[in-house]
Amino acid sequence: MPAQRPGPKRSLLVQERSRDTRRAIVKAALDLWAQRGYETGIDETTAEEIAARAGISKATFYFHFARKEDILLETGWLTARVAYEDARRELAGNHAVDEVLAELMAGIGRRVEKVPRVAVRRMLAAQNVGDVCHQPEDGARFGFERAFAAVFAHAQETGGLPGHPAARSLALMLTSLVMDAIRDWALADPADLCDVLRERAALLLAGARNLPVARPAAQ
Amino acid sequence: MPAQRPGPKRSLLVQERSRDTRRAIVKAALDLWAQRGYETGIDETTAEEIAARAGISKATFYFHFARKEDILLETGWLTARVAYEDARRELAGNHAVDEVLAELMAGIGRRVEKVPRVAVRRMLAAQNVGDVCHQPEDGARFGFERAFAAVFAHAQETGGLPGHPAARSLALMLTSLVMDAIRDWALADPADLCDVLRERAALLLAGARNLPVARPAAQ
Repeated sequence: MPAQRPGPKRSLLVQERSRDTRRAIVKAALDLWAQRGYETGIDETTAEEIAARAGISKATFYFHFARKEDILLETGWLTARVAYEDARRELAGNHAVDEVLAELMAGIGRRVEKVPRVAVRRMLAAQNVGDVCHQPEDGARFGFERAFAAVFAHAQETGGLPGHPAARSLALMLTSLVMDAIRDWALADPADLCDVLRERAALLLAGARNLPVARPAAQ
Repeated sequence: MPAQRPGPKRSLLVQERSRDTRRAIVKAALDLWAQRGYETGIDETTAEEIAARAGISKATFYFHFARKEDILLETGWLTARVAYEDARRELAGNHAVDEVLAELMAGIGRRVEKVPRVAVRRMLAAQNVGDVCHQPEDGARFGFERAFAAVFAHAQETGGLPGHPAARSLALMLTSLVMDAIRDWALADPADLCDVLRERAALLLAGARNLPVARPAAQ
């Protein structure tokens, strides 16, 4: 008898259930950490406690998150996914790229500023450790570049930006500027994160529009 | 009897000797790693072997470098220090900021491209681990921002750049763009690192010169 392949419906259901479990774990962990204070709570909370709070077995916990750090990373990915959905919605509204990016930056800034700085520092540290040696499959750096690349590509297609530098290249640059601003904020920079992010995006756009033609490379 | 304070001359001599020892250790480590291949050589080489090659005791080795990773970090700091010296020399020549930065970028690119990609990856990983939780005293990110801030401040004082954004802010932005380009290169990006760095610096300058006046923040 050939092995039965799950149909697309069943597979979707499994995916959905898995996503709900992951969210329950993340929520349980964040609740416990916040209760105990992020400064020491992350280290003091055990996998068992998080699993119990989420109403699942320890085995299920480890199936989804090999290390506690992976929960922190998941919150980062969620922020990136929300940014991507925001970007798509903004693009559908046919606003100028400057407005779209300003909104996107404000959204990211507001979301990050809600998280305690110490938790953001831990999240960035968790991300950094894996970052250089093992790039995650869906792109490093929280995946903001997917949202940004969509915005820049749309702007280039509709004449809102010159075709060079490439959208992907601009997206990578903006990602590093954004991640760096988030890091400075997490290290107690007193500046308003939304303002910093908006100015950086504006500077990048102004740069892309006014980049002088490249001189031939020195021989 | 009061404790004797070393005079400034003696103190300078001690500093110089200490610096020579550090350099000898770094050189010994790089030689051994290169001999054995960076891919596995860094892990396989012991502190004893590096100390022996440098002609010092193991105790002296550990006095200067608590972990092998710190040797990798030291090479990063050296690159930053050279960039700072390059920047000062370029500035003394009274060239336009665009040329100064292009030269600086080419210098950094050439220096990094001489190092095997795997060694640069290890260096970045070593830096990342300490980076977010424990900022080094003399500034994170290899300290490139000191060189860049000097260049931007000089340009602002001599009318080559508008006064906003602040030189330090521009320097931080350029540092993240540069570090990110180095990281992409280390992860096997085929693009010419010098070209990428020069274009990023040019884009930042164009952005700083054409940044629209900030709109009032949304209430």
